Amino acid sequence: MKNIKIKVPATIANLVCGFDILGMAINEPYDKMEVKLLKTSDIIIHHTDDFGLPVEASKNVAGIVLMKIQEHLNIKNGFELTIHKHIKPGSGLGSSAASAAGAAFAANALLGNILTKEEVVHFAMFGEELASGVRHADNIAPCIYGGITLVKSSDPIDIISLNAPALFVAAVHPQVEVKTSDARQILKKNIQLKDAITQWGNIAGLIAGIEKNDLSLIGRSLNDVIVEPVRSILIPEFETIKRKSLELGALGGGISGSGPSIFMLAEKKETAQKLAHMMKSVYDQIDIDSFVYVSDVNKTGISIEEQNF
Amino acid sequence: MKNIKIKVPATIANLVCGFDILGMAINEPYDKMEVKLLKTSDIIIHHTDDFGLPVEASKNVAGIVLMKIQEHLNIKNGFELTIHKHIKPGSGLGSSAASAAGAAFAANALLGNILTKEEVVHFAMFGEELASGVRHADNIAPCIYGGITLVKSSDPIDIISLNAPALFVAAVHPQVEVKTSDARQILKKNIQLKDAITQWGNIAGLIAGIEKNDLSLIGRSLNDVIVEPVRSILIPEFETIKRKSLELGALGGGISGSGPSIFMLAEKKETAQKLAHMMKSVYDQIDIDSFVYVSDVNKTGISIEEQNF
Repeated sequence: MKNIKIKVPATIANLVCGFDILGMAINEPYDKMEVKLLKTSDIIIHHTDDFGLPVEASKNVAGIVLMKIQEHLNIKNGFELTIHKHIKPGSGLGSSAASAAGAAFAANALLGNILTKEEVVHFAMFGEELASGVRHADNIAPCIYGGITLVKSSDPIDIISLNAPALFVAAVHPQVEVKTSDARQILKKNIQLKDAITQWGNIAGLIAGIEKNDLSLIGRSLNDVIVEPVRSILIPEFETIKRKSLELGALGGGISGSGPSIFMLAEKKETAQKLAHMMKSVYDQIDIDSFVYVSDVNKTGISIEEQNF
Repeated sequence: MKNIKIKVPATIANLVCGFDILGMAINEPYDKMEVKLLKTSDIIIHHTDDFGLPVEASKNVAGIVLMKIQEHLNIKNGFELTIHKHIKPGSGLGSSAASAAGAAFAANALLGNILTKEEVVHFAMFGEELASGVRHADNIAPCIYGGITLVKSSDPIDIISLNAPALFVAAVHPQVEVKTSDARQILKKNIQLKDAITQWGNIAGLIAGIEKNDLSLIGRSLNDVIVEPVRSILIPEFETIKRKSLELGALGGGISGSGPSIFMLAEKKETAQKLAHMMKSVYDQIDIDSFVYVSDVNKTGISIEEQNF
C-alpha cells in the first residue's frame, strides 16, 4: 500500500505580541512521521519515543485528525502511523500541532491531494482541540505553510503567508510544566483599551517589519503588554533570560506559545548560539534541567522525505 | 523676509481597525498656507475663510505650534501665517492636523530645516492637543510623511511609512456635529480580550495587505469590532452607506477619524465616483447637507508650492 515519510517542523506561536494570530516554523527541533494507507479502516498508531502519548486513535491528536478525515471523506481505508517525536510534548514548541498537521498533511498526500491547504488546516485543528480544548491554528498554520503566518480568521479559515526574514532563533525549554489550558485560564477576559492600542501598534509594527525585512523594527515591536505580564509568572527566570538576551544582542523575544519555552530572535547564528548557552546556564544555576535549540526559520513547512505511491 | 507657500493634504485617521495608530493622506481636499518669517517676535494669523477659527496664537492650532517652536528653539523671529482652509473643521478629515502640521513644516523650512521629521511631528502634536485634548499623531504623521503611516509609538515618536497602494477614496462629510472629545468619551475603557484578538487579526491583515499591495486582503481586513460599533451611532445613515458602498464594489471603509465623515476605498476611480454620488443622495433624501470628495492617496505629504529664501 501507499506510504509516505514526512518531516514536520516545530513552531513558535504568538511571536510575543501576536497572541492567537501569529506563528513561525523553525527547522530545529522537528518530528518525523511515517504513514501507510491501509486496506482496512483501522487507525493504528505507533510511537518510537517514551513520552507515553496515547495510541488509541480517538485520544491521540494525530489519530483524531485521521478519524475526522476518514469520516468526512467517507473513505474505507485506514492509516498506520508511526511518530518519531522529537518536539517534546508540553514544550510550547507546537508538539501537538506537529502531530496533528503531519497527520492531516500525510493523509491528504496519500489520498491524492484532494484537500485544499485550508482544509488540511481545518482537519489538523481537531488535534489542537483534543490537546488544549481550543480549535486554534496559530501553530498548525506555520507548520503547514512554513515561514511566518497570520491566522486572520480561523472560522472561516483565512491564513496569510508573510515574508520569512533571515533570522535565527534560540529557544530554551525548561523542564517545568505549564499546561496550555492553565496558561489560557489565567488570562483576563477584559483588558484596557489603552493596552490594546499599545498591543496593536506593536503587532502592526511587527507585520510591517516582517514584510519590509526591517530587523530593527521587528525587534522594537516584540513587546507584549497583555499576555506576557500574566503568563511569564509561570516561567522561572523569565525576566532574567529576557534581560540577558537583550544584553547579548537579541532582537527580542518572549514566551513560545503558552510556554514554558522561551525564544529569542537574532540576526546572526553566533548570537543565537550565545543566547542558547546563556539560557542553559541560567537554568543550570537553579538546578532546572533544560533543552536548548538554535535554528533558522523553516520556510517550507512540512516536507516529504520519501513517498511510495 | 523669507516666505513659503505650502499645500497640506487632508488625512483619514484609524483606517477602520487601526484606532489611534494608522492614518492615510489624500489629495482632496487640501489646505494652502503661506508663512512669512518676521523680524519681530509676533505671531500673526489670517484666515481667508469664514470658519471663524481663532486668530489669537495661543488659541489657534497653527499658532500654538509656532509658539512652541519659537520657545523651544529660543528664536527671536516671529511668523505671519495666512491659512486658506478647505478641509472643513470638525469633518474628521484632519483639519486641525493640517493646520498644525503645516505650521510646523513651514516654520522648519523657514528656519533652514533644523528639525528632524520626528521633531516636526512632535511640535505639530501641540496643535492636536489644543484641538482635542489629546497629543495624538495619527493625522499629523500621514499629513507630513504622505501615504499610509503607522504611529507605532507617540512617546517616543516612532513612525513607520507603509506602502501606499494605488487606491481611490470616496468620502462624505454630512453636516452634523461630532466633537472629537465626545467621540472619544463614549468609548469603553475596557474591552473583551476576544474582541481585541479579532481586532489585531484585522490590523495585521490590513498591514500585510498594504505592504503586499493585496487589495482583497485590505478589503477583508477593514473591520472594526471595537470602535465603530460605538461611534457609528453618532453618524446618521452610517450602516446604510456602508452596506450600499459594499454593494457598489467598495473594498471597505468606515468612519474617518472620529467622524462624522465616512470614507470608502475602491480600486477604480469610477467606483469611487459612484460611491460619492450614492453617499450624497443618501443624505439628500433625509435633508442633511453633505460634501463629498473623490481622491487618490497622497504619496508625498505636505508639498512646497513656492519659497523665497
